[in-house]
Amino acid sequence: MLYPQEFDVIVVGGGHAGTEAALAAARMGCATLLLTHNIETLGQMSCNPSIGGIGKGHLVKEVDALGGAMAIATDEGGIQFRILNGSKGPAVRATRAQADRVLYKAAIRRRLENQPNLWLFQQAVDDLMVEGDRVVGAVTQVGIRFRARTVVLTAGTFLDGKIHVGLNNYSAGRAGDPPAVSLSARLKELRLPQGRLKTGTPPRLDGRTIDWSQCTEQPGDLDPVPVFSFMGNAAMHPRQVPCWITHTNERTHEIIRSGFDRSPMFTGKIEGVGPRYCPSVEDKINRFADKDSHQIFLEPEGLTTHEVYPNGISTSLPFDIQYALVRSMKGLENAHILRPGYAIEYDYFDPRSLKSSFETKQIAGLFFAGQINGTTGYEEAAAQGLFAGINAALQCRGEAPWLPSRDQAYLGVLVDDLVTQGVTEPYRMFTSRAEFRLQLREDNADMRLTEAGRRLGLVDDARWDAFSRKRDAVSRETERLKSTWVNPRVLPAEEGERVLGKAIEHEHNLFDLLRRPGVSYAALTGMNGGAYASDAVSRETLGDLAEPVIEQVEIAAKYSGYIDRQKAEVERAANFEHLRLPADIDYLQVTSLSFEARQKLAKHRPETLGQAARISGITPASISLLLIHLKKGGFKGFASLRTEPEAAAQ
Amino acid sequence: MLYPQEFDVIVVGGGHAGTEAALAAARMGCATLLLTHNIETLGQMSCNPSIGGIGKGHLVKEVDALGGAMAIATDEGGIQFRILNGSKGPAVRATRAQADRVLYKAAIRRRLENQPNLWLFQQAVDDLMVEGDRVVGAVTQVGIRFRARTVVLTAGTFLDGKIHVGLNNYSAGRAGDPPAVSLSARLKELRLPQGRLKTGTPPRLDGRTIDWSQCTEQPGDLDPVPVFSFMGNAAMHPRQVPCWITHTNERTHEIIRSGFDRSPMFTGKIEGVGPRYCPSVEDKINRFADKDSHQIFLEPEGLTTHEVYPNGISTSLPFDIQYALVRSMKGLENAHILRPGYAIEYDYFDPRSLKSSFETKQIAGLFFAGQINGTTGYEEAAAQGLFAGINAALQCRGEAPWLPSRDQAYLGVLVDDLVTQGVTEPYRMFTSRAEFRLQLREDNADMRLTEAGRRLGLVDDARWDAFSRKRDAVSRETERLKSTWVNPRVLPAEEGERVLGKAIEHEHNLFDLLRRPGVSYAALTGMNGGAYASDAVSRETLGDLAEPVIEQVEIAAKYSGYIDRQKAEVERAANFEHLRLPADIDYLQVTSLSFEARQKLAKHRPETLGQAARISGITPASISLLLIHLKKGGFKGFASLRTEPEAAAQ
Repeated sequence: MLYPQEFDVIVVGGGHAGTEAALAAARMGCATLLLTHNIETLGQMSCNPSIGGIGKGHLVKEVDALGGAMAIATDEGGIQFRILNGSKGPAVRATRAQADRVLYKAAIRRRLENQPNLWLFQQAVDDLMVEGDRVVGAVTQVGIRFRARTVVLTAGTFLDGKIHVGLNNYSAGRAGDPPAVSLSARLKELRLPQGRLKTGTPPRLDGRTIDWSQCTEQPGDLDPVPVFSFMGNAAMHPRQVPCWITHTNERTHEIIRSGFDRSPMFTGKIEGVGPRYCPSVEDKINRFADKDSHQIFLEPEGLTTHEVYPNGISTSLPFDIQYALVRSMKGLENAHILRPGYAIEYDYFDPRSLKSSFETKQIAGLFFAGQINGTTGYEEAAAQGLFAGINAALQCRGEAPWLPSRDQAYLGVLVDDLVTQGVTEPYRMFTSRAEFRLQLREDNADMRLTEAGRRLGLVDDARWDAFSRKRDAVSRETERLKSTWVNPRVLPAEEGERVLGKAIEHEHNLFDLLRRPGVSYAALTGMNGGAYASDAVSRETLGDLAEPVIEQVEIAAKYSGYIDRQKAEVERAANFEHLRLPADIDYLQVTSLSFEARQKLAKHRPETLGQAARISGITPASISLLLIHLKKGGFKGFASLRTEPEAAAQ
Repeated sequence: MLYPQEFDVIVVGGGHAGTEAALAAARMGCATLLLTHNIETLGQMSCNPSIGGIGKGHLVKEVDALGGAMAIATDEGGIQFRILNGSKGPAVRATRAQADRVLYKAAIRRRLENQPNLWLFQQAVDDLMVEGDRVVGAVTQVGIRFRARTVVLTAGTFLDGKIHVGLNNYSAGRAGDPPAVSLSARLKELRLPQGRLKTGTPPRLDGRTIDWSQCTEQPGDLDPVPVFSFMGNAAMHPRQVPCWITHTNERTHEIIRSGFDRSPMFTGKIEGVGPRYCPSVEDKINRFADKDSHQIFLEPEGLTTHEVYPNGISTSLPFDIQYALVRSMKGLENAHILRPGYAIEYDYFDPRSLKSSFETKQIAGLFFAGQINGTTGYEEAAAQGLFAGINAALQCRGEAPWLPSRDQAYLGVLVDDLVTQGVTEPYRMFTSRAEFRLQLREDNADMRLTEAGRRLGLVDDARWDAFSRKRDAVSRETERLKSTWVNPRVLPAEEGERVLGKAIEHEHNLFDLLRRPGVSYAALTGMNGGAYASDAVSRETLGDLAEPVIEQVEIAAKYSGYIDRQKAEVERAANFEHLRLPADIDYLQVTSLSFEARQKLAKHRPETLGQAARISGITPASISLLLIHLKKGGFKGFASLRTEPEAAAQ
């Protein structure tokens, strides 16, 4: 049957990518259909019960700045919030939350069900409708044909998914869910370049069988409890609970090693490559043989369940090994496993065969987003889903794609990395992948993106109003600080010493004073009994916006120098294309580079910097760090270069 | 791997049967393991979002009286409660509730997670471990071998499940869930007698696309809101909402008929027999061709979703027919279907190969419960699960099985019907199946079963205390009524007329007066300005128990005569084994019999009453009604029989 209604956008898949894609296209006014094999699993967190983290939190805030669901759903479902790197610079500070699975899922489903222009339909997709070189719809398992102008495919781990536990394996899309076998075969027929990747998940534990007294409590940030969405607030959060920490030990590692001969990874049963930065515990023991202990986080799965997620022991070892390794750890001596850990292999498609809009080059109107593009992580999936949803909607409108640049958003970095470099393993976001990371901060994701989101039609009035108030207040306050001059005559020496460390000797404006290390906005505006304070930037005037406004003003003052230098540096680096790299450099010793970058450079030994930049997995940020290393080391041709270690190392 | 811990009872399956089986065995102190293919679907309502109804509500109250979860979970998740047949006799009064799927599931999962002696483990079961003629455990999909002394199999519709929508079909355990194919094959190897049945579910609708103003509101009972569990109260209920009613019409029926040539039922694609009393809409249109309209209930699926369950249009017609038939109804002209309706075929096992304890005759220690035994309905499944869980636990203890009799419980009727008569179609409970239905009421399920449950170890202290108080109060109050005499000298004539209809002429006790039609307990104890009231039976003394106690006393007085006569009648009927049935009787005209019974008798034309009683689907209750018909009609050999139409027709 051909379904009577024709859609603008069909989104296939209801995970993190599919959710954001469908919501975004519908927000932009497109008649959107979300096809999922099971409405009950919409918004399900398949792996860890947490959202955010360094690099990932940045993506979530960007999705939020564009009106997406992930951050606000986390605010509604989050049972522990932390700011990571809180003591470091604002660029690498990141929000991370544990979520109650049930509450998170409910928050996502509520949004999907209530989104105008969005229709939901439950049925697995077995086929795509293709006419010439253009996709024109999707066909479900019982042959219902839905016509649409564009299709966004977000199949996650479902395409020909195969679960491994030890040397046993079976077909599945995820534990408990059927795989998408027909669709996988169909995509192979379409000759889109594809490969296999794998990912994994740890066994889950029954908290009633854990001896918590043997574990270390890790509370969240409680004063204040962080908030994820620019539209969120702490009152939305449910009850907050702690996580706990235990450790692997020598005995654990022995047990793990004793299972290597039945590991599907080490025996070649699994062909797909796993995520380097979210390795299985057997991979960690194998790669870092000298480490005799790893930290394991015991994360609560929710407020109404005893289930616990032991973050750090993702594994596809046989179940007897899983059983023994869990019980070898302190506090887990009697732990009951509720669900075995497993690895899953699935089809992914080479993202280099995507246009910058995530439309496939071969089939017009067909967009790919999420794990199908070779990434890992909820946040990477959500960001891609949003992006593909936007560009599918723009195509329907007859407009050019929206392509945020690398200096505008992590989303730009993510897309550019994927389409230009492809992947050799599941791609995960890090701040180190962003050469402009000083300006790509969580705190200014809205400043970077909400205006674009509003133009695109993604941002509703409530968000736009809040954003506009914040933006205008920041701008007015910055201007006020720049134009308010403090004269040594009006600032008593002791007041200067108290606030600025020493008395001023000539006239300064407040903005310049704020740039000084150790001078806070609060202290500055408190000088002379509050003479420099502004009513316009008070809690009374701005409410919840007061703090974010002050934060923006403060960061603008303190970091603008670094940011400007970083920009110049990155631009210069782009000119270094033809610089020859020293033949005798030992890349493994370049400790400022990531382990991955060092290995890849050592393996490929590029001749020029340009060649190095084109190696898959070598980011512009790596090139920037390499340049600094070469300059510092006085290598020929590099010694005289101008580089900015402070900026790049931030 | 052989799992280190050995269990007493393994329950395979986490639906309504598996839940009650696992909870019951664990309550009885057995180390119990619940194996489910997906912990997320524990407590899922696969079909309609409602619990109870006539016959079914009775089972739920019995499960509750034995400490089970279904009634109290419904109290926690129920968003509409009604007493059906509220104006009829107490025997056929029944409770029915709509449940919020999410809240119901959460209530069940919470109980499963918090039950001592119960372990949960997520993984599909592919095989049973059998040694000689005894089951000794179960093997999961990745080869984990769990040893146990008994195994309760509650596989629902999963065994070799096949979903049909029109002429398309695919393997599944339920929409969105994988089927149990390996386990089905293994059970076939074990040569347990089996067959195929089918059941179905309607398409689900998006409430935002329904024009409610065109439908008739059907509110629940709100004053008071009924309560399901003997341990429940109305304060547990979430917000209450109405259902709505629309109707099929001639156009709907035309559309349905136009799909008959692509119906998997009518074209023979489906081999399994479906439930007669929960027929698909195409079956209704086909069988009752003269009816030009059927009532369709639009039931809300929950408080946080717009999804609506259109009760009455279960169908496996092709999706284009589903689409058109939905939109042909008033209020549904623009209704969006969220999930297609479908039929599912699955393996069931002939319950005649079960012992009365539900242990299989062929394999010791292996129990079957729920849909696998050829039944339909959540309530029938829950009751069987509880029953099998109890008997598995008793076997572990080395005790004889617990076998409630037909005059003790619907559970006794259900089990006896299944093991003695087997099924030719999915078995559903009705009050008409119980020849002792006057005494098998919802209101006295606790009086009938809680003492047995306490002896078995199923009933916790809180329930036992509440029950004991109620039982003792009923007994004391009954005694008091019987021993309190009212003399014409102390009861003024006008007071007698007001309360009893006429002045009394000689002395009566209160119990006898209460037996009179139209005389209520409240009126009676209010006579002479409350002279006959008892402080012991007041809300102050008994709290929430006051009303149930009065209800029991009242029913005991009013119905004991009927009940005694019904017993005698049923016992006499048992003696009619050799009575020859008239050769010329037209069974289709015996309107007191169910349509099913009439068809079966007409088809088989038994020679004696004994033969009639042994036809599958002909219940002792049917025989009782047939006897009355024969006596009334003056058929030879029947005219002089003593029968009690009032009792049997109640």
